[in-house]
Amino acid sequence: MRLKEGRQRVIIEGVDPEIDGGRFAIKRTVGEKVIVEADAFTDGHDALSLALLYRPEGTKKWSETPMEFLGNDRWRGVFSVSTMGRYVYTLLGWVDHFKTWARDLRKRVDAGQDVTVDLVIGAQYVEAAAAHTKGKVATALQGYARALRAGGDEAINAGLSPELAALMYQHAERAYAATYEPELIVIVDRERARFSTWYELFPRSCAPEPGKHGTFRDCAARLPYVAAMGFDVLYLPPIHPIGITKRKGKNNSVVAQPGDVGSPWAIGGPEGGHKAIHPDLGTLEDFTFLLNQARELGMEIALDIAFQCSPDHPYVQDHPEWFVRRPDGSIQYAENPPKKYEDIYPINFESDDWRGLWEELKSVMDYWVDQGVKIFRVDNPHTKSFHFWEWAISEIKRKHPDTIFLAEAFTRPKVMSNLARLGFTQSYTYFAWRTNKWELTQYLTELTQTEMSQYFRPNFWPNTPDILTEQLQQGQRSMFMTRLALAATMAASYGIYGPAFELLEHEPVAPGKEEYLNSEKYEIKAWDLDADYSLKDFIVRVNAIRHQNPALQSNAYVRFHFVDNDHLIVYSKSTEDRSNVILVVINLDQTWTQAGWVGLSLEELGIDPFRPYEVVDLLTNAHYLWHGTHNYVELNPHVLPVHILRIEQ
Amino acid sequence: MRLKEGRQRVIIEGVDPEIDGGRFAIKRTVGEKVIVEADAFTDGHDALSLALLYRPEGTKKWSETPMEFLGNDRWRGVFSVSTMGRYVYTLLGWVDHFKTWARDLRKRVDAGQDVTVDLVIGAQYVEAAAAHTKGKVATALQGYARALRAGGDEAINAGLSPELAALMYQHAERAYAATYEPELIVIVDRERARFSTWYELFPRSCAPEPGKHGTFRDCAARLPYVAAMGFDVLYLPPIHPIGITKRKGKNNSVVAQPGDVGSPWAIGGPEGGHKAIHPDLGTLEDFTFLLNQARELGMEIALDIAFQCSPDHPYVQDHPEWFVRRPDGSIQYAENPPKKYEDIYPINFESDDWRGLWEELKSVMDYWVDQGVKIFRVDNPHTKSFHFWEWAISEIKRKHPDTIFLAEAFTRPKVMSNLARLGFTQSYTYFAWRTNKWELTQYLTELTQTEMSQYFRPNFWPNTPDILTEQLQQGQRSMFMTRLALAATMAASYGIYGPAFELLEHEPVAPGKEEYLNSEKYEIKAWDLDADYSLKDFIVRVNAIRHQNPALQSNAYVRFHFVDNDHLIVYSKSTEDRSNVILVVINLDQTWTQAGWVGLSLEELGIDPFRPYEVVDLLTNAHYLWHGTHNYVELNPHVLPVHILRIEQ
Repeated sequence: MRLKEGRQRVIIEGVDPEIDGGRFAIKRTVGEKVIVEADAFTDGHDALSLALLYRPEGTKKWSETPMEFLGNDRWRGVFSVSTMGRYVYTLLGWVDHFKTWARDLRKRVDAGQDVTVDLVIGAQYVEAAAAHTKGKVATALQGYARALRAGGDEAINAGLSPELAALMYQHAERAYAATYEPELIVIVDRERARFSTWYELFPRSCAPEPGKHGTFRDCAARLPYVAAMGFDVLYLPPIHPIGITKRKGKNNSVVAQPGDVGSPWAIGGPEGGHKAIHPDLGTLEDFTFLLNQARELGMEIALDIAFQCSPDHPYVQDHPEWFVRRPDGSIQYAENPPKKYEDIYPINFESDDWRGLWEELKSVMDYWVDQGVKIFRVDNPHTKSFHFWEWAISEIKRKHPDTIFLAEAFTRPKVMSNLARLGFTQSYTYFAWRTNKWELTQYLTELTQTEMSQYFRPNFWPNTPDILTEQLQQGQRSMFMTRLALAATMAASYGIYGPAFELLEHEPVAPGKEEYLNSEKYEIKAWDLDADYSLKDFIVRVNAIRHQNPALQSNAYVRFHFVDNDHLIVYSKSTEDRSNVILVVINLDQTWTQAGWVGLSLEELGIDPFRPYEVVDLLTNAHYLWHGTHNYVELNPHVLPVHILRIEQ
Repeated sequence: MRLKEGRQRVIIEGVDPEIDGGRFAIKRTVGEKVIVEADAFTDGHDALSLALLYRPEGTKKWSETPMEFLGNDRWRGVFSVSTMGRYVYTLLGWVDHFKTWARDLRKRVDAGQDVTVDLVIGAQYVEAAAAHTKGKVATALQGYARALRAGGDEAINAGLSPELAALMYQHAERAYAATYEPELIVIVDRERARFSTWYELFPRSCAPEPGKHGTFRDCAARLPYVAAMGFDVLYLPPIHPIGITKRKGKNNSVVAQPGDVGSPWAIGGPEGGHKAIHPDLGTLEDFTFLLNQARELGMEIALDIAFQCSPDHPYVQDHPEWFVRRPDGSIQYAENPPKKYEDIYPINFESDDWRGLWEELKSVMDYWVDQGVKIFRVDNPHTKSFHFWEWAISEIKRKHPDTIFLAEAFTRPKVMSNLARLGFTQSYTYFAWRTNKWELTQYLTELTQTEMSQYFRPNFWPNTPDILTEQLQQGQRSMFMTRLALAATMAASYGIYGPAFELLEHEPVAPGKEEYLNSEKYEIKAWDLDADYSLKDFIVRVNAIRHQNPALQSNAYVRFHFVDNDHLIVYSKSTEDRSNVILVVINLDQTWTQAGWVGLSLEELGIDPFRPYEVVDLLTNAHYLWHGTHNYVELNPHVLPVHILRIEQ
């Protein structure tokens, strides 16, 4: 135990938020609040004061806000983060002798005790504070000190005045104050880290002529279609040269046929590796054109970071030390015995040249950042060293705090949580496999109401090129609508893999498999974007609602509501001030019309229980007049399985 | 982030027990187990191994035990603490390449794959391990390596043999292993820290002649009475000189009458302070005699540490800098405005000479330790600096790990918890005010089933000289029996203030007050120890049961059981191996006979559900044959409100 200052008597503990004892940061976006609570107390009966200190990392001067006492030794304070980057926060607590004195003076006066000596003690406190202030403050404090020394009722009034209390809080010496350790970190991202709407497509399927390899220019021509649906992040699978050796054929067959284009995730060929562009997609100039076109439409391009190599990747020749070599001289391909993935060499993070490896991998992301890419979807980050990610993300964000990293880890919960804690901005989730009311309620509650909400930003995807869920395989239009509405209203960030999604693509490669038949991962697809069964108009509507309603742009205020029918799920999202409250009602039964009585906690929603209130279905523009806590809902899945209601107040 | 070793790939987190991120120690007694759980994982598909490391603090060599995988990335290991003092524990995790290899070899063989190259890889692992071992181990490893190189089925059998797995776990290099930080601490106390039976008495009331000031010799004569009841700690209120100035009279009157003996907690007079003995009690020699007599009867003397001073304490003259001086020159007496406690000067822990003060206060405890006292009941520790206690207790226990400190803090929950965490061995509790079934169940569950059980050792007191609860004020014999039985069977440590308790003393000083009328704190009392209404025989029986049944000597295995009558409370305590199971049934209704059906979870208690089993009431020696889960109980409070049943198996 350190014995530097034994007079320090305040204990501060139980700080929230604090992730793993301060080992990891919490996350916010610019303009958001950080609400901090802590236990603080001192020995005996003395009053204490507690302040919340915060500053952008790298600056020296703390800003400060007083913490409010909640009871049971618990305190709360709030600050806002206004710039991207990292903030630091901590707590300062001190035995507040003047506050103690004023509190006790009131009790003594009420009990009719003689307070002559007490007023002198108060004057001494005020004089001590005055001695190290200047100007108006000093003058004011000196005035109070004189009043206290003069004694009598006026002295008592002066001693108990709120003005003096405020001056003393600011200016009295905070002797032997305790500073909480360690200092805690907030990563502050831009708004899109919190609120983003993703669309994944394969540029090579964008050619106007079916079967032809699409280019970035073709992809640029597709942008208005995507933008019109309301998406703001266009995520492209890897855009790099694809290996020839052991290339996979259609439907993941181990032998490719002539003309098979291979999987974009088998990265690297004679044309280059992770910093090169697949020649059939175009040039760096074409890519820059795409970036600029997207920007003009209010969209950003997200690239895929998949740190693995085809046998033809330049690293294999230039850096054999980054791979595992087997006794027969071959390089170890990827496998999950007995399964083999011979078109892929995993990187060996136990390489003796790990420093060189780390620097090179980071330089890949640096390279694309320099080209103007600020969002990365990271492929299987959990199969690469955790410490590498922590280092690389923090280094990149130090220079470019506007970068966003989405972790594509569909793995065990503790591993997913760890990736979020070590620095990934957003995370894929189990949403695709959470289907019934209980599962959805539990999962969203875990994500938004527990400590996870401080660092894990969920991104809900109803499908991906790897995930065609059993539910979607039925091909029901209502199911696609339901899953999209759930994703778009439960999570502030969501995405779809299109055009497969809006075109209701649903044939699996085999029964019981979640892979698409004739998956776009292994071949060029031609999509009929104007098909009459396309969900695009529904998606346009849902995304417009997201953009118009701030309640749906954050996961901070989520609440599930009672409904007397287990086929229906009802939840609300709101802004902090409840000026925008969205109530979502979804029929999870794809076959039958379901009806029920929704039970709302009106007080929590800020609704006057004695007046009718209007709810507007933002999908249909239908207006309903509701009364009190219980109101009737009915949803026919064959018409529209979803209400997205705005409560008008 | 440190970049020393990037090849380290194992993450260890979520360690339990770990108090406040390792800031505080957990507590055990000699011979107890520490069960440690943690989350551990690595990137990708590699297998990992995790070991629990532990050592007595101050020794260098770690002992090690493997941790077992529980699922969901959770692991568990166990070690026992065998010596008093402090232990250190931590975790070591590494990517276990041989374990991965063996696991994958099995899968490859099962899938009928060619494993020729894999066997060579295995041989290389084994050869690497052999290279840095000697003697028999090296020979054995070399043999396995040869077998692996030979190929074929025998090589496969060798590679998958449990013997080789065990050798490799022990001897293969644990490359890039991750050590969990920080190292965590266990305070290991002697058994009495866990299991103790306390009796508080005022030595000055021990004189055979009523009204005469009792001495240590008189107190020694009282020891057989206390020992016969089965108590093993005799706690004495402060034994020091008592101040004259502002001495309190009988019933806490502010003016003492001639002959009034004052409160023992107003410490210090011309005869000395905290290291002196009240002359009327005797000499240091007499005190040593008392200590020795107690020891011969299997008891220990506990002293009171009350760091406060009467105005006549030598510190007031010798160390005015340790007190707060008011502007009128007077020293600040204790107060809780508007209440004044003018017979007491509190110590100022913000004294500029805090180092001198801390050393002096610690020297008080050192002095009594040197006289042979090893147990201290610390009066109101929460009104003295927390950091002082943390320092003083750890310093004293470093030299004398057998010292025990009981915190007498009846204050807010977070403060009580903090005192336990910073080092107090045992703690007084809210037990006295937990009276109905719900309260008792909740409270004991919080103490024994939450993290508190790792550091907070409850000591249950039905009464103290300051606490005559409303329940006891009714004076019902059955209530005294009930409260004693609850304290003695719920908590492994409990105590009573006697002879007030066994003599059913119950008159409050005023209605609504918890102070005793004619409190022994302010006067000498004469007690009729042989009164026929004395509970002593009941206490003898209860304490004998505690001594004979190890289940009651720990709070590790407590469970509440169903009973279909809310006036009855039913709980069990057992040893880890369930060789001793005690089931307690108490009627909380002091007026009426209550009966009900107890529902036991037989499996948890290790009872064969298909055979009758015998339960023996250890209070009455009645034997009952019980069948299955539900059995009838009935308790008449006017006869005996308690069953203490041993389940015979």
